[in-house]
Amino acid sequence: MQHIQVKTSMPSDVCCGAGAADRLSEILKEKEVFVLTDENVYRLYQDFISRTLPNASVKVIAAGEKHKNRRTLFEIIDAMMSARLHRNSWLVALGGGVVGDMGGLAASLYMRGIGALQVPTTLLAQVDSSVGGKTAIDHGGVKNVIGTFYQPRYVLCDPMFLKTLPPREIKCGLGEIIKTAALDSNIYEKICQNAQRIYDLDFLSEITADCVRFKAKIVGEDETEKSGKRKCLNMGHTTGHALELRYGRRSHGEYVLIGMWLESFIAEEEGVCTHEYAENIRSLISLAEKKIPLFKDAESAAEVAVLDKKNEDGKCVSLILPKTYGEYKELFLSIDKYKKYLDRLSGAER
Amino acid sequence: MQHIQVKTSMPSDVCCGAGAADRLSEILKEKEVFVLTDENVYRLYQDFISRTLPNASVKVIAAGEKHKNRRTLFEIIDAMMSARLHRNSWLVALGGGVVGDMGGLAASLYMRGIGALQVPTTLLAQVDSSVGGKTAIDHGGVKNVIGTFYQPRYVLCDPMFLKTLPPREIKCGLGEIIKTAALDSNIYEKICQNAQRIYDLDFLSEITADCVRFKAKIVGEDETEKSGKRKCLNMGHTTGHALELRYGRRSHGEYVLIGMWLESFIAEEEGVCTHEYAENIRSLISLAEKKIPLFKDAESAAEVAVLDKKNEDGKCVSLILPKTYGEYKELFLSIDKYKKYLDRLSGAER
Repeated sequence: MQHIQVKTSMPSDVCCGAGAADRLSEILKEKEVFVLTDENVYRLYQDFISRTLPNASVKVIAAGEKHKNRRTLFEIIDAMMSARLHRNSWLVALGGGVVGDMGGLAASLYMRGIGALQVPTTLLAQVDSSVGGKTAIDHGGVKNVIGTFYQPRYVLCDPMFLKTLPPREIKCGLGEIIKTAALDSNIYEKICQNAQRIYDLDFLSEITADCVRFKAKIVGEDETEKSGKRKCLNMGHTTGHALELRYGRRSHGEYVLIGMWLESFIAEEEGVCTHEYAENIRSLISLAEKKIPLFKDAESAAEVAVLDKKNEDGKCVSLILPKTYGEYKELFLSIDKYKKYLDRLSGAER
Repeated sequence: MQHIQVKTSMPSDVCCGAGAADRLSEILKEKEVFVLTDENVYRLYQDFISRTLPNASVKVIAAGEKHKNRRTLFEIIDAMMSARLHRNSWLVALGGGVVGDMGGLAASLYMRGIGALQVPTTLLAQVDSSVGGKTAIDHGGVKNVIGTFYQPRYVLCDPMFLKTLPPREIKCGLGEIIKTAALDSNIYEKICQNAQRIYDLDFLSEITADCVRFKAKIVGEDETEKSGKRKCLNMGHTTGHALELRYGRRSHGEYVLIGMWLESFIAEEEGVCTHEYAENIRSLISLAEKKIPLFKDAESAAEVAVLDKKNEDGKCVSLILPKTYGEYKELFLSIDKYKKYLDRLSGAER
């Protein structure tokens, strides 16, 4: 088991490896506990919950990003009130990114903040969303537009949960792993050397700890995304988010892969990286996503991107592009130019 | 003009005195600004807004605590989205406690936090609620149960606004001033020496800065109410909040006065302070509130108090009681004992 500390205003302890989830009962001994989970996870881990946290109140929400909204948030808060949680109570978010984002938000808002503990059950959540304290709901067609920065006190990343994940969910987590590889040359190399093990759970558990360590460092330097350092984590996300909101259906991680793939061409054409490096990034992406889909009318997704909170003046679109091994560059494109790129790169003419 | 810094994770600058509000245009020069205000304040200060912040988007909400709820919060967030605010935009909360609490919450949630600037227009907000970063809405019958700790970057307390306040609003602010006097012996003395000037705006402007300085010190030592130091600011509030939620109609500050008055008897009977000191506290209260009203069926308010976030285990009620000049003591009462006190002290038999 690896222990990683995220050094923020309210430090988080992340435990990665087999047995991490068993720490739950020890950490929360004699605490009042509220478990948030979704119907899929509950079906699989109902026994785990009642064994490790026998006295907890449990709230089960509908699964899926489309429920990451105001309505579900207040459903959760109402359940917390019914459970008569107090300021010393804890919320355990047991699930994927949606449960983690909403659980974190509910924990940060309830009585101005109770203890939050993340138990991410998907690869995506283990490798990325459970660490760093970003909480959110989607609203008015904009992803994560409402949220807080609120550090969980503990994050327990246990590979046990990956065993019950459908392969598509693994691909989804690979989206953020491959993004991290484009930002950190050691992770890049490790993945290249283990390309054939990319769906192997032991390898994934190992690389998860590497990705968490990378993210912990960035978050420790820029907790609330003010200094600009944390921005790098948005590689592939501007286009990914925009397509996700416009077209739905696929998962966040898949859209990150698609976003990175499309943006690698922009990076190349804008002279941010060489053709060769862009090709390397695309090979990396193709380890997880063999076939990038086409999108009709993709320029309309650009309109969505402008509303994204990453784009500070509302006129330009900010892209975090691959530059070379372990390096990135932020590029601002006018909305018109970005529209043309999206249309050309993701449309049928590609 | 007095400058006071609140030394928290995100420091706030508080300016108290004539001319403070004029700093708005200088501070927000070239920024994208969203002004939140209520219909009462807007009626009086529409010209002030268009003169100092000519390019701002303005959202006017219905006035009153009963609108401090989820519905209004999302009305505000939707208006922020329509105004296409981005992460570098600022929210100015121009109004009393309700506008400040909700504006602060909306600013903390929108894109995980934009700059917040408080321009408190009531004495209560100037002296207390605008400083310290507590934001909130009421929900499910519990006051401030949803909120965040989010420091405004600036607070501008200008006595100009007090001129248009109805006398009842002044009394309301006196609630928090008198509470502060019970916690700080210098403020206590100053008020006793100026008892005849207690409704004089020059005196109030001076004492506001003193109260802000006291609060800034406490908040700097315990920003998120974890160490216990900040608890003292809740003197009179357990009973005040409970009666406020149960009976409504009166304002928060009036309920703080009533709460302190009732709790002064509890302090005396529980041996926390002498009869003489309790009488002194009651004389202080009577400078602002001549006649403490009776409440029928007050024990039912005790049920509400248990749900209050100050009461951590849900079984006892925490009271911050006056001990002696500049000192307080936290006392826990069982719900039954507290019910009996409330019933006897505030009921018709008193």
